[in-house]
Amino acid sequence: MKKHYEENPWLIVEEGFHPDMQLSSESIFSLGNGRMGQRANFEEDFTGSTLQGNYVAGVYYPDKTRVGWWKNGYPEYFAKVLNAANWIGLSPIVDGEALDINSAEVSDFRRVLNMKEGNLQRSFIAELKNGIKLKVDAIRFLSMVDDEAAVVRYCVTPLNYSGPISFKVYIDGDIINQDSNYDEKFWAEVSKSISNDEAYVTLATKKLDFQVCTGQKINVTQGGQKVSFSSDQKEKEKYVENTITVDAKEGEEVVVYKYACNISSENHPKTELNNRAKTVLANVYAKGFDQMLAEQQSAWAKRWEMNDIVIEGDVAAQQAIRFNIFQLNQTYTGEDPRLNIGPKGFTGEKYGGSTYWDTEAYCLPFYMLTSGSKVAKQLLLYRYRQLDRAIENAGKLGFKDGAALYPMVTMNGEECHNEWEITFEEIHRNGAIAYAIHNYIRHTGDRDYLKEGGLEVLLGISRFWSQRVNWSSAKNQYVMLGVTGPNEYENNVNNNWYTNYIAKWTMSYARESIEYAKSDSAFWSDFVAKTSFQESEVEKWSDIIEKIYEPKKEGTKLYMQQDGFLDKEDLTAADLDVSERPINQHWSWDRILRSIFIKQADVLQGMYFFEEDFDEDTIRENFLYYEPRTVHESSLSPCVHVVLAAKLGMHAKAYEMYLRTARLDLDDYNHEADEGLHITSMAGTWMAVVEGFGGKRIKNGVLSLDPMIPDQWTSYRFNIVYRETVLSISVNGDGVSVKNESGDACDILVYGKSVSVPQGETISVTK
Amino acid sequence: MKKHYEENPWLIVEEGFHPDMQLSSESIFSLGNGRMGQRANFEEDFTGSTLQGNYVAGVYYPDKTRVGWWKNGYPEYFAKVLNAANWIGLSPIVDGEALDINSAEVSDFRRVLNMKEGNLQRSFIAELKNGIKLKVDAIRFLSMVDDEAAVVRYCVTPLNYSGPISFKVYIDGDIINQDSNYDEKFWAEVSKSISNDEAYVTLATKKLDFQVCTGQKINVTQGGQKVSFSSDQKEKEKYVENTITVDAKEGEEVVVYKYACNISSENHPKTELNNRAKTVLANVYAKGFDQMLAEQQSAWAKRWEMNDIVIEGDVAAQQAIRFNIFQLNQTYTGEDPRLNIGPKGFTGEKYGGSTYWDTEAYCLPFYMLTSGSKVAKQLLLYRYRQLDRAIENAGKLGFKDGAALYPMVTMNGEECHNEWEITFEEIHRNGAIAYAIHNYIRHTGDRDYLKEGGLEVLLGISRFWSQRVNWSSAKNQYVMLGVTGPNEYENNVNNNWYTNYIAKWTMSYARESIEYAKSDSAFWSDFVAKTSFQESEVEKWSDIIEKIYEPKKEGTKLYMQQDGFLDKEDLTAADLDVSERPINQHWSWDRILRSIFIKQADVLQGMYFFEEDFDEDTIRENFLYYEPRTVHESSLSPCVHVVLAAKLGMHAKAYEMYLRTARLDLDDYNHEADEGLHITSMAGTWMAVVEGFGGKRIKNGVLSLDPMIPDQWTSYRFNIVYRETVLSISVNGDGVSVKNESGDACDILVYGKSVSVPQGETISVTK
Repeated sequence: MKKHYEENPWLIVEEGFHPDMQLSSESIFSLGNGRMGQRANFEEDFTGSTLQGNYVAGVYYPDKTRVGWWKNGYPEYFAKVLNAANWIGLSPIVDGEALDINSAEVSDFRRVLNMKEGNLQRSFIAELKNGIKLKVDAIRFLSMVDDEAAVVRYCVTPLNYSGPISFKVYIDGDIINQDSNYDEKFWAEVSKSISNDEAYVTLATKKLDFQVCTGQKINVTQGGQKVSFSSDQKEKEKYVENTITVDAKEGEEVVVYKYACNISSENHPKTELNNRAKTVLANVYAKGFDQMLAEQQSAWAKRWEMNDIVIEGDVAAQQAIRFNIFQLNQTYTGEDPRLNIGPKGFTGEKYGGSTYWDTEAYCLPFYMLTSGSKVAKQLLLYRYRQLDRAIENAGKLGFKDGAALYPMVTMNGEECHNEWEITFEEIHRNGAIAYAIHNYIRHTGDRDYLKEGGLEVLLGISRFWSQRVNWSSAKNQYVMLGVTGPNEYENNVNNNWYTNYIAKWTMSYARESIEYAKSDSAFWSDFVAKTSFQESEVEKWSDIIEKIYEPKKEGTKLYMQQDGFLDKEDLTAADLDVSERPINQHWSWDRILRSIFIKQADVLQGMYFFEEDFDEDTIRENFLYYEPRTVHESSLSPCVHVVLAAKLGMHAKAYEMYLRTARLDLDDYNHEADEGLHITSMAGTWMAVVEGFGGKRIKNGVLSLDPMIPDQWTSYRFNIVYRETVLSISVNGDGVSVKNESGDACDILVYGKSVSVPQGETISVTK
Repeated sequence: MKKHYEENPWLIVEEGFHPDMQLSSESIFSLGNGRMGQRANFEEDFTGSTLQGNYVAGVYYPDKTRVGWWKNGYPEYFAKVLNAANWIGLSPIVDGEALDINSAEVSDFRRVLNMKEGNLQRSFIAELKNGIKLKVDAIRFLSMVDDEAAVVRYCVTPLNYSGPISFKVYIDGDIINQDSNYDEKFWAEVSKSISNDEAYVTLATKKLDFQVCTGQKINVTQGGQKVSFSSDQKEKEKYVENTITVDAKEGEEVVVYKYACNISSENHPKTELNNRAKTVLANVYAKGFDQMLAEQQSAWAKRWEMNDIVIEGDVAAQQAIRFNIFQLNQTYTGEDPRLNIGPKGFTGEKYGGSTYWDTEAYCLPFYMLTSGSKVAKQLLLYRYRQLDRAIENAGKLGFKDGAALYPMVTMNGEECHNEWEITFEEIHRNGAIAYAIHNYIRHTGDRDYLKEGGLEVLLGISRFWSQRVNWSSAKNQYVMLGVTGPNEYENNVNNNWYTNYIAKWTMSYARESIEYAKSDSAFWSDFVAKTSFQESEVEKWSDIIEKIYEPKKEGTKLYMQQDGFLDKEDLTAADLDVSERPINQHWSWDRILRSIFIKQADVLQGMYFFEEDFDEDTIRENFLYYEPRTVHESSLSPCVHVVLAAKLGMHAKAYEMYLRTARLDLDDYNHEADEGLHITSMAGTWMAVVEGFGGKRIKNGVLSLDPMIPDQWTSYRFNIVYRETVLSISVNGDGVSVKNESGDACDILVYGKSVSVPQGETISVTK
């Protein structure tokens, strides 16, 4: 854990230039607008350590799967998040020397991520090797309003110099991907053009032929007056550059405005990309920087209105939750049905693909309760549209008759991960996709979604489970062999309790949903015709539901993570030397596998999802056994533990876990922020506040709140959309007040008691 | 299974040209002399399907390990068997058209591998597109006497043409490796030279800088008379060519003799390679083809004298056993301590590396009992010399205090495999290396080998086992978690019985060996000082030996392959549809893993190694349970089953398994002969005859024979070296006769009775 950034409720601030932290800071200060995103690379030339990152949503590269020995069923490709053209390039050159803060003497360096307004600011004074001192103030943002456009305002004040300063303003498409095989380049040039104040490069990915036109349009002012210039124009392969020279005066600001855009063939015909780029740039250029900035501020203000969580009395916690919410909103806006929430968003290349079970298990609640049911439904429909691919995927593994196995990772429904122990075995993901349907319906009341796709998905997944189990004559029960549970520090285990349980639950929920759907006879006959559904399938499910094996420790309430778990050497994380942590960076893989240490909630993930199925003693006994054996080396781990610990009244543990999830990247708990941020687990942080401290549940179809407050806080406040009503919930040491911000009167449970909250009113309940 | 080659006791014969079988035939007709080897590619230009393969012993390429997600402890590289310069190139050109039997009209095609004499012959008539008919008779071999040299005699008779015929005689070093990443080339040119009748290319591998100088020297005769010629000389990168044109006469033979050599920097200073090549070529050129051929014949005759197994009454079985013995002798001669027995020998690229546990478990008995104790000891010392690396390897995985884990695959002692489930988990290999020491000592009586390295190896391996187990408080026994047994259709299982048993056995044998070694106090004090051995280590071993868990089915004599095995769906291989076999080509990996099907002997491997520890009923019960569930998709599987079936009196099963092992490649049981031959399992075929049918055992330090004979055979005969005495053993339906071919009188057991065989005499025992 590192404390590096200043604690501030609305800003992330870095004071002083820290080259050793540059890679992490590039992740932390990332910007995005759902359509594109960018690591916080510097505009100017930089010879220090950096991971260049510019990403355009939906654009990926199907890199040939790399394995030692090919095995049947392996996916053909691993979908790489593709680093795209660098469009921020803007480098001042004075007296023949380019500003490079790696080699210059830098002082007064300050970098600010303004989460409230959605921009990145940076200022510093640099003394070049030639002795010339420049003061730089830069600000940039990716527009939430014009989501194909972005702008940089780069202001240079020479402090001890008058004379020419040149600005090399460029787009560089000749970029590399960090994890490319053998340093292959993934982009080829399609076309480019350049004029005095504009330049465009259109690039195509070497496979799949995604095309992106990146453009820039430049304006320069000096002493507040527009400067007319005649730029030097330079073209190289995949590269265009306008160099503009200004006769600068000591103490007088020169400001370069670089308007930029990324236009993707995902959204426009390939033949139209360049025209569209010109239109977009002309539009934002006409608006000008100040208007764009004002629009950006108000777009973010609108987001915060609904999304914000206010924590009083604990700046670190306040900053952290806003950071997570900010990054989630930068990553996914819910506007494009083809997009999803990549685990690193637009902040790094690691993991590849865009859609993991993280979406259903962690992200859905956040978007559902802050952006509303439409966005949540969009996420469900994303999977429904990919059902055919999931059936194909199961077919490749030998399943049949409409069984569906959703991919571990995907861009378009095809599996694109590359380890058998994950791709083939980490099948609990299928359960999370079924669970999300249930979770959506119980929150929104939109049971008709079953008929709009939900039931087909449930059927496909249930068919998979029923084929995936086998009868054990030794146990006289159904078993599920060869799986990987959520705890990926185990591979190829038998009878992972969580997987067995969610399989059973899916079949049971599918059975119940079928009964519901049958009442609509027109729908039902279409459904049977389309899916070749047979009643005998439900009979088979019922048999499995009744007879599936759940490993348990005799004489206790402990569910066993998998068969043989008790054979492990019994240690707790407290037995580990701090120098060995995280174990995934210090231990060999086989040692991790055979150790007792748990990467993330596994049995406890089941207790979290299906809390109502277990009495509190059972949850407590399992929590007390598993949590101390958990090393939380998955970003998805702590949040689930917050929710359970809060429920169990273990407030100190809940708060400890909260800081770990909320400040995971800011304080770099797992020593990996340099690779990018843990976007999907950020939704877990929101969940930790709302479900953990706030005690939000749905009980028998009714919203229930059972809030507690960490000792360190004086109060906290969050909003949720519940059945189209926005509720603003404030908690302090005395109790909770709930304000109905819109909609009809709303009946909810608070501390177990029924309460009605009339429109526009606030009710308070003391604990 | 395909029957393609003519059955013949000493020859492998292919009649007719079969382009669809070319890849397999290139494997089958491979040549080697222990120092280098070659697939049966054609000399002339060939546009059909082919896998070029020329290999030089000890030369490899450390190709960057390819995995999806890097894990701690992974080996840095995968050692590729490197395809080297093609030195057989010799292409006739008539009237501007090069002979290409893929495009010519070919008749009378016949290819013969003469196993008795160690050469490859090929003859055919080709009608070119220009109407010219050529009769070709080619023969080539890699000299067993001059093991850096080889020769091609290429005879062309024009059948309907008189006029110029050109012969393009070349060395092409611009070759590709089948499995290179992204078609990288692995060789760079160092130098080349060419003169009228000689040419040389020296190449270096791009990593590790192995250098090989390949040379050719040419002689031409016409109508039996030497032709003087003036060649056209051509050089390209990594390529040299002499083209010789002869004024041919219809019906008259033109013979091109191409003497060739491969001189490796493994054996000579780099600066001397070219000189050495010239010397070698001058020498064989002076000898001439006929003398080389005669020397080759007598070298092979000498090998066969000791190695041959004669089977009367079953040509298919006879041919097969000789094919296996022939290939084993082509692969490894026991002369170079740095070399070992690669799983594909010199016949293909697959698998990489050169040394697997195959050497100790399967190959050692063959070389020990046909080539004698010196070669066997060489194989043991190979591992002893790599002990430091094995300790390093264990260290990378977190083991300490001198624990040794030998690599799954290696060239020089470093691990160079690339799958965690094998590299990290298939640790039973360590046991086979310990077992080989025991096996060597019990056959040779050379117990002093313990002091020459054996004991250090046993200590290192025992230290590994004692750290690798852990105490299970649930079982109140030691367990071994997260392993892969010999049956690689399971991964990451707990308590693989075979692994637990061989671990226990190793510690027990090490304990006993330490007691023996202590009696030599000078050795012992050095040993303790060198290894930091402590008595408490043996105490720990004793505790583990006593308390290690062995999974067993209650109420039976069945050892369970691993924990949870009985949870699998209970099927036998007979339940499989023939279209699904081999399952590894038809099923997804996860389906294979969770199925009951066994790739190769696992529990039965233990019954084979430690037969004396189990009563016959136990072996029978385990055989009857496991064999029907075994799909024998490892080439190492059937031989072990022959030995056990023969012991159990299951003659039909033994014979079925014998054909499967002996004719595995000739009849291509597993549909993969195109990739190369299964060299190491060929030793298993020898074992199947000698230990299976011959019933050869060591019982209380005495050689014991208990032969049976398959119904299909009238008699069979084999030789073994037993304590420096050569015994020739003949078996027929009546019984066995044993001739003492050398040495002192020899006391052995035959059918359980003590028998003395005086020098030079034959004793016969009726069953």
